[in-house]
Amino acid sequence: MKSVDAGLYDIVCVSPRNHMVFTPLLASTCVGTLEFRSVAEPVGRIQPAISTAPGSYFFLARCTAIDPDSHTVHCESVTDQGGVRDAVEPWKFTVSYDKLVIAAGAEASTFGINGVKEHAIFLREVHHAQEIRRRLLLNLMLSDVPGISEDEKKRLLHCVVIGGGPTGVEFSGELSDFIIKDVHERYSHVKDFIHVTLIEANEILSSFDVRLRQYATNQLTKSGVRLVRGVVKDVKPEKVILNDGTEVPYGLLVWSTGVGPSPFVKSLYFPKSPGERIGVDDWLRIPSVQDVFAIGDCSGFLESTGKPTLPALAQVAERQGKYLSNLLNQIGKAGGGYRNAAANLELGDPFVYRHLGSMATVGRYKALVDLRQNKDDKGLSLTGFVSWFIWRSAYLTRVISWRNRFYVAINWLTTFVFGRDISRI
Amino acid sequence: MKSVDAGLYDIVCVSPRNHMVFTPLLASTCVGTLEFRSVAEPVGRIQPAISTAPGSYFFLARCTAIDPDSHTVHCESVTDQGGVRDAVEPWKFTVSYDKLVIAAGAEASTFGINGVKEHAIFLREVHHAQEIRRRLLLNLMLSDVPGISEDEKKRLLHCVVIGGGPTGVEFSGELSDFIIKDVHERYSHVKDFIHVTLIEANEILSSFDVRLRQYATNQLTKSGVRLVRGVVKDVKPEKVILNDGTEVPYGLLVWSTGVGPSPFVKSLYFPKSPGERIGVDDWLRIPSVQDVFAIGDCSGFLESTGKPTLPALAQVAERQGKYLSNLLNQIGKAGGGYRNAAANLELGDPFVYRHLGSMATVGRYKALVDLRQNKDDKGLSLTGFVSWFIWRSAYLTRVISWRNRFYVAINWLTTFVFGRDISRI
Repeated sequence: MKSVDAGLYDIVCVSPRNHMVFTPLLASTCVGTLEFRSVAEPVGRIQPAISTAPGSYFFLARCTAIDPDSHTVHCESVTDQGGVRDAVEPWKFTVSYDKLVIAAGAEASTFGINGVKEHAIFLREVHHAQEIRRRLLLNLMLSDVPGISEDEKKRLLHCVVIGGGPTGVEFSGELSDFIIKDVHERYSHVKDFIHVTLIEANEILSSFDVRLRQYATNQLTKSGVRLVRGVVKDVKPEKVILNDGTEVPYGLLVWSTGVGPSPFVKSLYFPKSPGERIGVDDWLRIPSVQDVFAIGDCSGFLESTGKPTLPALAQVAERQGKYLSNLLNQIGKAGGGYRNAAANLELGDPFVYRHLGSMATVGRYKALVDLRQNKDDKGLSLTGFVSWFIWRSAYLTRVISWRNRFYVAINWLTTFVFGRDISRI
Repeated sequence: MKSVDAGLYDIVCVSPRNHMVFTPLLASTCVGTLEFRSVAEPVGRIQPAISTAPGSYFFLARCTAIDPDSHTVHCESVTDQGGVRDAVEPWKFTVSYDKLVIAAGAEASTFGINGVKEHAIFLREVHHAQEIRRRLLLNLMLSDVPGISEDEKKRLLHCVVIGGGPTGVEFSGELSDFIIKDVHERYSHVKDFIHVTLIEANEILSSFDVRLRQYATNQLTKSGVRLVRGVVKDVKPEKVILNDGTEVPYGLLVWSTGVGPSPFVKSLYFPKSPGERIGVDDWLRIPSVQDVFAIGDCSGFLESTGKPTLPALAQVAERQGKYLSNLLNQIGKAGGGYRNAAANLELGDPFVYRHLGSMATVGRYKALVDLRQNKDDKGLSLTGFVSWFIWRSAYLTRVISWRNRFYVAINWLTTFVFGRDISRI
């Protein structure tokens, strides 16, 4: 939306939330290293036309169905976020389009395991991070109140993370930083009771170079994170049960085992790519219909393109967004902006993804940077403080607005000087 | 708590929230001029001993009863704030004390009017300000969604404030600033539908100099705030009904008609001062018992002292807190720190309150400063930009921690440069 030319198109955004989350930094907000607002960009700041141009709008709504023949989208307004009292009843409406871009994202996978949605917290939205932070601070305070048993104290302060991908590892690293620095200084009565366990079925950071994986394992272990190889069978309100029968009591359970298609994406009658994503061609179009495109985690190349499904990463989505906005601007300039008007246009170069590398922090001013193009390639990989510095600098430049870039830098500075914020508001 | 000598006393704080709210700046957080965390000070930052000293603690709990004979306080833990899932059951416990300070504050008055608690939002805690901000942004977005009627749009965007004291006036001023600047720029489709109405039974800012009251009335009217003289009879989910039968539809209803005693204070069997507050003597002691003090909005001078009840202001509470911590330190040094050990000590000077003046902003870089000692005195009073500058500077110096002082300044700067934050998280 940022780069679509508002002079060529009226832009309408339909979304159940009015902001974009800068997910790579979300884990840092759970313990107060960063503030929630520093990682949230209001849609109106990304594309101001939606709030000022006469034909452009932001609709706080959920898309329920797409009718590509009549070029309309069916929506339902979202009226009750954040437990608003006296909420208005949601209502249905339709939006006509000339061009449609589906960028509906994916959903956290639970693998059908019972109790995950009820008791575990995902780490994909700002409200997840808020819930984790509230929960963590509540448990720290409750375990200091008289009348609580030693076992209950241990349970409340046991933080369990399921999934050893970058999100799970970065969150565990942030958590151990918080424990080593802030809990020891500011909750020193209970500092010996708090522990972090990271449970992963296979290897942690499986997409990274083997040397980096080994480094991450060492660093996390040094910081006091217990790494457990295991498969979760069942999630109860106060404990996780593994396949081998082990029971792991927890006070905080964070679930980050990757993503899968959302019910909305599943409900669409378009041809799918491997992994049940919306299938697109080399130009990110849905080939069976006119004027519909799909980008980001909800989409994947059709098998007929011969290209592999791209990983569900921010850098893929960002690159696709930039490519598609250029394509749409080019189509608009060539007079193909209206519905069914672009069928015979020459679209130019197809979308090609070039992986820039992967990064992950492991806490204590250490990070991993893997600059290989591909899992099986050879190439540069870095660890340690320099990597951590690259990690911070790289993400700071990717933050969308200057306002948030400024706030992220200020948050990092104040966390360094004053420690993390521990007010539970 | 800040100034009590942790070398003389073990300090235990029992409170249902782990932070102090800097209420004079709370109204600014409702529209994003300031961030919520900038006005919240964690108790552990105010008095670090509670989290590090072996005998000092913070208990996240509510006080349910006081037994002055056995020197114990009965408490119940608070386990479910912020709608935590799988919350632990609250449990009861007792705390023994040598000295007890009751600083339990007051509660928003509803005057027994039906529907206030259910439908109106108070403005006393951070979660109130969060609810107001979420509601305001939600209503702005919903009124832009297709399928909404003109009447419903007008209702959703009608912000009604009940009570013309400093809180109601400052909130109305902040709201009109937000409308004039941010709504016009960033919600320009609906800018002509949003309105603010301030309803007050008597005069606005009744404690201020008549010249200042007139100035405030003019400024608010100029900014588009509709001032209505009226008494609320009933509050329904979508409208307020006044005594004369007028119906006022609203989308956001903020209630700030002053404070009264909380159920906890009402339940205490101590002699009361006028206004049902806990009665104290010249040294802020509860005279009928040993070692119990009361300060802030929950306390008032007994009629026998011949002193008037002090207003429920932050500056009164702050001065009393400073006086009492000095008194306790002095008692402790004289060997009277243990229970029943201070009965025969000479306490020195009684507490004397000297009013430093009152301030209120009215929006658009304008404020009032009333430096009269008393309502009927003559003295200096100022209006306009200079007052606004004094208002900001004075509050900035009163913010407790350097961290938040820094953040308040940064928030003001970014609001000035980038506008207010409109992400609804």
